[in-house]
Amino acid sequence: MLAKYDLPRLTRRVILAAAAALLVAPLALAQTDPLPSWNDTAPKAAIVAFVEKVTKENSPDFVPEPERIAVFDNDGTLWVEHPMYVQLAFALDRVKAEAPSHPEWKDTQPFKAVLENDMKAVGASGEKGLMELILATHGGMTSDEFQKIASDWIATARDPKFKKPYTELVYQPMLELLSYLRANGFKTFIVSGGGIEFVRPWAEKVYGVPPEQVVGSSIKTQFEMRDGTPTLFRLPQVNFIDDKAGKPVGINAHIGRRPIAAFGNSDGDLEMLQWTTMTGGSVRFGMLIHHTDAEREYAYDRDTEFGRLDKALDAAALNQWTVVDMKADWKQIFPEK
Amino acid sequence: MLAKYDLPRLTRRVILAAAAALLVAPLALAQTDPLPSWNDTAPKAAIVAFVEKVTKENSPDFVPEPERIAVFDNDGTLWVEHPMYVQLAFALDRVKAEAPSHPEWKDTQPFKAVLENDMKAVGASGEKGLMELILATHGGMTSDEFQKIASDWIATARDPKFKKPYTELVYQPMLELLSYLRANGFKTFIVSGGGIEFVRPWAEKVYGVPPEQVVGSSIKTQFEMRDGTPTLFRLPQVNFIDDKAGKPVGINAHIGRRPIAAFGNSDGDLEMLQWTTMTGGSVRFGMLIHHTDAEREYAYDRDTEFGRLDKALDAAALNQWTVVDMKADWKQIFPEK
Repeated sequence: MLAKYDLPRLTRRVILAAAAALLVAPLALAQTDPLPSWNDTAPKAAIVAFVEKVTKENSPDFVPEPERIAVFDNDGTLWVEHPMYVQLAFALDRVKAEAPSHPEWKDTQPFKAVLENDMKAVGASGEKGLMELILATHGGMTSDEFQKIASDWIATARDPKFKKPYTELVYQPMLELLSYLRANGFKTFIVSGGGIEFVRPWAEKVYGVPPEQVVGSSIKTQFEMRDGTPTLFRLPQVNFIDDKAGKPVGINAHIGRRPIAAFGNSDGDLEMLQWTTMTGGSVRFGMLIHHTDAEREYAYDRDTEFGRLDKALDAAALNQWTVVDMKADWKQIFPEK
Repeated sequence: MLAKYDLPRLTRRVILAAAAALLVAPLALAQTDPLPSWNDTAPKAAIVAFVEKVTKENSPDFVPEPERIAVFDNDGTLWVEHPMYVQLAFALDRVKAEAPSHPEWKDTQPFKAVLENDMKAVGASGEKGLMELILATHGGMTSDEFQKIASDWIATARDPKFKKPYTELVYQPMLELLSYLRANGFKTFIVSGGGIEFVRPWAEKVYGVPPEQVVGSSIKTQFEMRDGTPTLFRLPQVNFIDDKAGKPVGINAHIGRRPIAAFGNSDGDLEMLQWTTMTGGSVRFGMLIHHTDAEREYAYDRDTEFGRLDKALDAAALNQWTVVDMKADWKQIFPEK
């Protein structure tokens, strides 16, 4: 188009400068307050200082864009995990939905306890029992079928306390943080102890994180031609547990680079934060979300029944990880709708 | 900058139009011939037709950018795999390099055969023997150490026939294809039967594919704190074989979306192409590279000693996958340096 006009050189230069200005202006405007739901306390300042350091060209701490990898735990870091993991609520609902085709469940623990709403007995079945519930409800169908089941459930299920869909019980300050990092050239990954195929169907819409940037626990899948149609069938067998020492393994397997920033909230995230930050030298960022807000959300750490943040809290002090005090540091917990 | 001048409305409009033209012009220019090393035969036309279909907005075949996933096999599809996989050449070199600390290898097959350059005996050790060689040379160190070993080797090793580094024995037409797809909003992934950590250290530089977009076979890794330093230690145990029916499993695990285009060259890619293209309806693209050029590279398929393309060639006809005849369809095989 432009070539037609054969503009004098000076005019073209003016237009080029104007074009450049037009491109830059909207970015400058958008950056006025990238983290409006964060109070002006230490964590917000630490985040901004870190991002400015690694994005400032010619600075010794500059990190090229492809290496700006940030990893986020999901449960308790990006959305509510209390009083039980959302995925466990999903598994319990699935047991009830599938009970008619499993008459044997009426007399078999831990299924019996689920069907009788006896949460104490469910809890008493321990990790082994919970794993049985997960495998029975997450395996035995194709990947496409599971994706539909999970998507349908997440669209209709409601949290019992807040009476809202779980996807609205995500933390507004963390949504802003994800966007802020992406606006600064970061690739944001979820690294969840939860099931990778449970998180993927809605992670893009809710967090802006595409399926290929979700790392998580998985069950074994098997490729099969079924009536001439290629399918991936989900077997009721554990493939990989993306928790604790599994998180750095999952990060290495999926991302193949060491992240420069990691965000978690529990002892399950300890190794991920160690792997990310303890590199001896280069600038890294570690953050723990400390649930301190019994009024607006929940308060729990080492001592409570739901205690999950213990060793990692000690490690935070040693490693200078930033600890977010939800009550003091977050202006707002959930998105306004 | 612009605001200062308080331009009349009309002038601003002209500048905006000019700015838009400036943004569009370079793209239009770059697209004059995106695939210059491809002859004007059917495969090139098929690629261009596919890309135009899925990128044309408001067309029934339009695919939104995030779903434009293309997967590429590596050995024989992006670089030379003859007379042996490059990674096997690496393993053989590593056996020789590490032999001094393994005196027992002098009397143990298949190591003995490697040290005596008895390739017939190496071959006779079969898949089991080759796996032993891979595990012994790929495990027993940290991920960081392995990455350095692989990077150093790839920088200095030379292909015996072409007397060039292996990273120069990549196919120029495929490099152009990778770039062309990316310029059209595709995310390009490598899905290799080879080791994920063997390919990652150089894939970004050579193919423009970042580590997080490499899928491959892997051995087990374990997170450990060693003298206060977090490390990932590589165990001499198979974790996952990303070949044949493993490829759709690897794609699902890493990408979590079904690709819309797949490129391979052997029966090891059959299931990947089936998974990508046999979806009943939407527009997909499958391509096989047929090695037909004994003069410029190699010629092999079903009948030769190195036969690897048999079932997939039959499936190509059934499924309307495009088959590239290297000799007829590629103007140039390797990049000029």
